Amino acid sequence: MEQTCLKAREASLKLALWSDDQKNALLKAISENVSANTAKIAAANQKDLDEAEKMLAGGELSGPLVKRLSLQGPKIAQLNSYLESVASLPNPVGVKQFGMRLDNGMDLERVSCPLGVLAVIFESRPEVVVQVSALSIKSSNAVILKGGKEAKNSNRALWEIINETLVAFDLEGAVGLMESREDVDSILSQDKYVDLIIPRGGNAFVQYIQNNTKIPVLGHADGICHVYLDSEADKDMAIKLTLDSKLDYPSACNAVETLLVHESVAKGILPDLAAAFKKEGVELRGCESTTKIVAGLKEATADDWATEYTDLILSIKIVKTFEEAVTHINQYGSGHTDSIITENEETAETFMGSVDSGCVFHNASTRFSDGFVFGLGAEVGISTNKTHARGPVGLEGLVIYKYKLRASGQIKGDYSSGKKTFLHERLA
Amino acid sequence: MEQTCLKAREASLKLALWSDDQKNALLKAISENVSANTAKIAAANQKDLDEAEKMLAGGELSGPLVKRLSLQGPKIAQLNSYLESVASLPNPVGVKQFGMRLDNGMDLERVSCPLGVLAVIFESRPEVVVQVSALSIKSSNAVILKGGKEAKNSNRALWEIINETLVAFDLEGAVGLMESREDVDSILSQDKYVDLIIPRGGNAFVQYIQNNTKIPVLGHADGICHVYLDSEADKDMAIKLTLDSKLDYPSACNAVETLLVHESVAKGILPDLAAAFKKEGVELRGCESTTKIVAGLKEATADDWATEYTDLILSIKIVKTFEEAVTHINQYGSGHTDSIITENEETAETFMGSVDSGCVFHNASTRFSDGFVFGLGAEVGISTNKTHARGPVGLEGLVIYKYKLRASGQIKGDYSSGKKTFLHERLA
Repeated sequence: MEQTCLKAREASLKLALWSDDQKNALLKAISENVSANTAKIAAANQKDLDEAEKMLAGGELSGPLVKRLSLQGPKIAQLNSYLESVASLPNPVGVKQFGMRLDNGMDLERVSCPLGVLAVIFESRPEVVVQVSALSIKSSNAVILKGGKEAKNSNRALWEIINETLVAFDLEGAVGLMESREDVDSILSQDKYVDLIIPRGGNAFVQYIQNNTKIPVLGHADGICHVYLDSEADKDMAIKLTLDSKLDYPSACNAVETLLVHESVAKGILPDLAAAFKKEGVELRGCESTTKIVAGLKEATADDWATEYTDLILSIKIVKTFEEAVTHINQYGSGHTDSIITENEETAETFMGSVDSGCVFHNASTRFSDGFVFGLGAEVGISTNKTHARGPVGLEGLVIYKYKLRASGQIKGDYSSGKKTFLHERLA
Repeated sequence: MEQTCLKAREASLKLALWSDDQKNALLKAISENVSANTAKIAAANQKDLDEAEKMLAGGELSGPLVKRLSLQGPKIAQLNSYLESVASLPNPVGVKQFGMRLDNGMDLERVSCPLGVLAVIFESRPEVVVQVSALSIKSSNAVILKGGKEAKNSNRALWEIINETLVAFDLEGAVGLMESREDVDSILSQDKYVDLIIPRGGNAFVQYIQNNTKIPVLGHADGICHVYLDSEADKDMAIKLTLDSKLDYPSACNAVETLLVHESVAKGILPDLAAAFKKEGVELRGCESTTKIVAGLKEATADDWATEYTDLILSIKIVKTFEEAVTHINQYGSGHTDSIITENEETAETFMGSVDSGCVFHNASTRFSDGFVFGLGAEVGISTNKTHARGPVGLEGLVIYKYKLRASGQIKGDYSSGKKTFLHERLA
């Protein structure tokens, strides 16, 4: 394990010096190697699928999980287009962020640079091997991958293809593969070698990672998103956006879980909204006031406010004031995505300033919070962290910066003694 | 404790909405209140000093620690100029970082915002109470302070003055004070309420904090900085810069601890350099090759390469190649500050690209790595983290960002179905 980490660290230091052209050439070569090995990938994946079907029959695996495992036909071609699209993104490394002339012949520059070594731990979907390798290479990071055992053969086949290309480019170790369950805990303790962990998977899985490592984790466990219907909400828009926020993709992390309604519009909006949700088969759970307006609802408990259903369930709470809505969101939300529906722009701005979440929306479906929708070009993940990267994270979440000072023999003593003074002239 | 955290969280949400003018008015009012209470501060500090003198006599406190405790005469006036200078800095909150028109009537904006609640744990120097409060207010963060018990009376007096002003501004709780030793461990476990911990103090202290919390920590434990004399180093510059890197302030974290010398210049430079260091009372420890060039040196062990002396001691290692120097730095360094001395610009660029540290210098003393020297206006600390903030950290280390989407009723379903497509027009 430490050997894999050391090799990754070594490769990362090489990659840090690579130009964008070199990295794109490598991504292109990987893409070609993937194409040349379509049959190998399909065969390896078929092994996993056969195994999964048996486990499905035995009740050890769920249907959706088996479906996510498939890497056949068009899905392999999609890998190529993914590699090409990552190659076409702007180079996130070497971006000048800040320049300052400290004195004549002494220029300071702050420039983006790779983090070093990433570890990505993921469940089922084997295409993550290629996607994450592409993002890592483009950002000049080495990466250690640990996939689920249900995709073992697919993961290994894809990794072998990538590794073969890396060897040809004298970059062996830049993508490492871990295969045993014990490797997960082993990675989590490598804070000396791993700079960032990205978990891809369900709630409990991400929480386990977050609670068992000192390495920074980029991701989110919960996605408890809110829609708040303000006293000045347009009724039609309110209904349309709430429905979309729940129904466009109910199991997504950016789907709404709790609807907050200002008491002044509750009676006007909730009956029609409830009828529309009922038609779509959504179970509604309401606070006491809600149950008085919409008959036959299950009463929501405090647990409901703190639950990500990822299902056709929505909890509803009527609030007396705007402040109560904001307080509820900041208390029970997960800092993911929250939207206010109102015709009052001032109220909307206060909402977006007061709600402490990565994405705060006005008159929009919560479903828009996504790296591709945001135009970031790629999505590394959605982060509910408060440091480093927040919300949908693109390639820039995989870089940090360093300060480079180019001088000509200056000593600090001359400035400490007052013999010289700093210029501090901002450079473009 | 949780009460203090909750109050801080509440105050932080208020502060998040404050304009720069409001924050500056508050800083000015604190400054005036400090001036009005000079006698109170001096008296409280005198109590601490009297206590410390007793402990010094009993050997329970060290001389330098007692000295750092003093807050008399001009030191109080310095607090005012500090508050003024922080007020004059640009507002780090509300800075537009990115804009994208997702579609007509749907504009995305990424804007800087406060982290929320900071916790600053520090030793001795009571002026930290005022400095950190100023930085927190300017960045719209609430802060919980925990100082050392040797400065108990001074810390409380300063906090009372600040708190009095906060109350007048209806912002009670924005600066909290913790006073017992148990409070430290209590803060470390408040990952639900505290967004960033900044430890200010020695090595072991910072390490303890880092090892005992899940909250992100901004800071550095070790400062193991290197100077590397390349095969193309100018001899006079090499000697001058190495001396300054050690002697300008030997106990500073950016002082050099290990000198690496390319073997081709070792015989030419080391004897004169050793003589100069001897004159200044610096103890040199060398690798085996070094001891053959400079007689009478203590031999350095592997422990030396990993030690921050913060004292008049320097370890010296002769390397056979440039690569060996880079590898040594990446293995033993702490990612703080490393400098190459060479006349070859290409070698310098490779060094700055390959050495994985927050500050990488060419022909400069390591002593220049400092937030004020860099022109950042303020220094929150020096970070050897790889995420969020690295190197000397100014106010922008205390902010993160959020995405604000201002729309007009759009639903994701229209884009998922292909009925509409995103514009993705970059906004200035």
